[in-house]
Amino acid sequence: MIDQEHILALGNILGDKGIVSEPGAMVAYQTGARYDEGLAGLVLRPATTEEASSAVAYCVRHGLSLIPQSGNTGLVSGSTPDASGAQVVLSLDRMTRRFDLDLDNRSLHTDAGFRLSEVNQQLEANGLFFPIDLGADPRLAGMLSTNTGGSRFLKYGDVRRNTLGIKVVLADEVGTILDLTSDLRKNNTGVDWKQIFIGTSGAFGIITECVLNLEALPRQMATAYLVPSSGAHVMPLLRSMEQKLGAYLSAFEGMSKNAVAAALDHVPSLRNPFQGGHIPDYVILCEISRTWEPREGEQGLDAVLETVLAEIWESEAAPLADAFVGPAHEMWALRHALSEGVKHAGKLIAFDLSFRRGDIMAFCDRMKAEMPGAFPDVTICDFGHIGDGGVHFNLVVPKDSQAATDAAFEQHLRDWVFNMAVRDFNGSFSAEHAIGRKNQPYYDLYTDGKIKELAAGLKAITSPGALGTVRFG
Amino acid sequence: MIDQEHILALGNILGDKGIVSEPGAMVAYQTGARYDEGLAGLVLRPATTEEASSAVAYCVRHGLSLIPQSGNTGLVSGSTPDASGAQVVLSLDRMTRRFDLDLDNRSLHTDAGFRLSEVNQQLEANGLFFPIDLGADPRLAGMLSTNTGGSRFLKYGDVRRNTLGIKVVLADEVGTILDLTSDLRKNNTGVDWKQIFIGTSGAFGIITECVLNLEALPRQMATAYLVPSSGAHVMPLLRSMEQKLGAYLSAFEGMSKNAVAAALDHVPSLRNPFQGGHIPDYVILCEISRTWEPREGEQGLDAVLETVLAEIWESEAAPLADAFVGPAHEMWALRHALSEGVKHAGKLIAFDLSFRRGDIMAFCDRMKAEMPGAFPDVTICDFGHIGDGGVHFNLVVPKDSQAATDAAFEQHLRDWVFNMAVRDFNGSFSAEHAIGRKNQPYYDLYTDGKIKELAAGLKAITSPGALGTVRFG
Repeated sequence: MIDQEHILALGNILGDKGIVSEPGAMVAYQTGARYDEGLAGLVLRPATTEEASSAVAYCVRHGLSLIPQSGNTGLVSGSTPDASGAQVVLSLDRMTRRFDLDLDNRSLHTDAGFRLSEVNQQLEANGLFFPIDLGADPRLAGMLSTNTGGSRFLKYGDVRRNTLGIKVVLADEVGTILDLTSDLRKNNTGVDWKQIFIGTSGAFGIITECVLNLEALPRQMATAYLVPSSGAHVMPLLRSMEQKLGAYLSAFEGMSKNAVAAALDHVPSLRNPFQGGHIPDYVILCEISRTWEPREGEQGLDAVLETVLAEIWESEAAPLADAFVGPAHEMWALRHALSEGVKHAGKLIAFDLSFRRGDIMAFCDRMKAEMPGAFPDVTICDFGHIGDGGVHFNLVVPKDSQAATDAAFEQHLRDWVFNMAVRDFNGSFSAEHAIGRKNQPYYDLYTDGKIKELAAGLKAITSPGALGTVRFG
Repeated sequence: MIDQEHILALGNILGDKGIVSEPGAMVAYQTGARYDEGLAGLVLRPATTEEASSAVAYCVRHGLSLIPQSGNTGLVSGSTPDASGAQVVLSLDRMTRRFDLDLDNRSLHTDAGFRLSEVNQQLEANGLFFPIDLGADPRLAGMLSTNTGGSRFLKYGDVRRNTLGIKVVLADEVGTILDLTSDLRKNNTGVDWKQIFIGTSGAFGIITECVLNLEALPRQMATAYLVPSSGAHVMPLLRSMEQKLGAYLSAFEGMSKNAVAAALDHVPSLRNPFQGGHIPDYVILCEISRTWEPREGEQGLDAVLETVLAEIWESEAAPLADAFVGPAHEMWALRHALSEGVKHAGKLIAFDLSFRRGDIMAFCDRMKAEMPGAFPDVTICDFGHIGDGGVHFNLVVPKDSQAATDAAFEQHLRDWVFNMAVRDFNGSFSAEHAIGRKNQPYYDLYTDGKIKELAAGLKAITSPGALGTVRFG
């Protein structure tokens, strides 16, 4: 519970539109898009960085715990309050005024409360986009705070790579505004402070503005499904494609048989694209793209992809069992249906792992070999971004099984998978979802003591107030 | 002077090969590649991270000031000792053991003492390279510590973008080794600590190992000189090229008439490529490249570039006064000769500035307009990386003029240029050379007080010992 006195004081700072204290109206801010339910003591909705600064300063001075919240589409309890009812949510959903497009600089200086889709809709007429390709539709501040990657990382990189500058409010007694909104691409005049706020779930400050790098929209695209001769052929395939297609290559996504089957089961409108209805053990969706329409005398991308696949087909290593070019829309539709598909196949226990690229298939093979003995009821429905090492390692247990309702079972399974991923394969326990309350135990477990000590020191000099769901120290 | 006792103790730690104390042998370590001369009290040459750690711990415990030194090719006095003779240089020139290439991951885990050229020679057989294109040949640790950019930033980005992990020795009493050598591409499990060591001139720690992203070597390339109709047409030209050529575009370099003339004067073997020997006011060297050889039925890149230039030539905005495709080797030879050329044209006063891309020409125009009144003897010989906003803003004064020998004049001129670049144009006073002793006054002048306070805090929690030439606090 938040004292009435605080509610009044914060109302004076933010105005009527800037504060939500009625329990029914707060529900939207205490519930995550997919998981999570907490209880907000109060919701603040500043419209400007200055308002956010004043509100933050007030909260810090009065010892109120702040949870910054952006689109709230995250999957790790990074932006929802806990169950105490004592936390204050600071939502960025009204921070949508500034939208300054610089065409010459190919950059956008904007308030951090816009949704990704809003940004890209507004940019489309100029042939530009913010090149982070996600299933969800987060607001920018959250994308920066989790450093999202997505399906076209291979070509465009992550949010970190595409961020030129930010503005941050620190959780200190004055609500310091740190203006790091440079729009320069080359600038080496000290610590690049923005980097410590990117990917750290708002623990060190609240991002309220950003300057983003934009890329030219692709005007032409071709996609193919590749069926590797075996798991061992996946990396040679990727390496060939990178060598032969260079910067054309914009996605190289892996889909396991189980994940594809779950998607086809769940979405009847999807056509099974494989001959005779047979689903291969593993399929790769490969996409190439470029920013211009085909010119006279120039091959279209479908033809380029066909040519390259023919070259690879005929190569001695014979990495391909099957391959065919097809309509991008259809091929991506299946890929995008995987996530929903596996959710309907049973109770889903999801992992967002990453590995050195060469270890992805080895990890999955090891899991396939050991899972039946260790956890007989579990089906592995993995898919992921082979090109960047990310694996959405999804486990499904039957909904009516004991496993589906036994919290201890789930915990045991999680620990077992993470241990193998992190300890045996030097992988990451959070490739692109950051930490949040959900991954906190794994941060605590797998992070070196010295790193925690440094993080605690960083916290003390930036935002000593209670901020966010993660304890980095 | 360093006490004999310290020299003996450090000799015991590092062995005979690991220590240089003879004045003549130390000269190479106290003299910069182009500028700088200091006096080393002692030179340490550890061969491993563990040796570096032990030596650093000793120095910190005994209050010795350490200057990390990599290739020593920098231009801002970032890696040479001061004139006191009391500083200890820690050279990375023996850190050249580990060289672990991961072809599947397209990454290289290596000791940080290799030179860029050595790395790329070793990678060539695998069709890969570390895609930072520089005039100098630094060692890796220095490239990371200054976050070098170079001429192909537009396509490949800077060192920061291409660094997956590092290992760092902190200047604390135990010489803490911070192992951040991840080879993961997607990993969001806390603060990305490597970022604070990149571009900060070794002030927060000594980089001893790194994991680098590699790119496929270009197999085909085409270049053209573009003469814009006016300065105002440069940005529309760049935007057209980016839209029409996408990721093919690998360089978009600007060369002023004065810089070109100086290069042609200085290097007689260079051919003046412009009709009638006339040098245009401003010339752009544009390069496109791709990773594959031309395939059957596919246009070569020369033809692609010709086609695109014809499209632009015919466009209504008429941004081009002239344009011609030519041999890449010749076209780059002139570009690469600019730096030496301007050095021979008189006494050189060089600036490494950057701007929002749209401000580059405006800044140069403003300088051209105001320089004659403010500093009549000065000739502007700018060139730079238009595609990323970097400008090598070079000023030349006649060698026999009073201006060439008057330190106060030079200081006044520097202050005047920096003031306009930073205050009037929100530019950077160091685009890709970082800080060092040379830019320290400008860091002190232009850096926000809160940022300095944060940097001092960061210094205290990472490397409290005396390390490097820069004071960030």
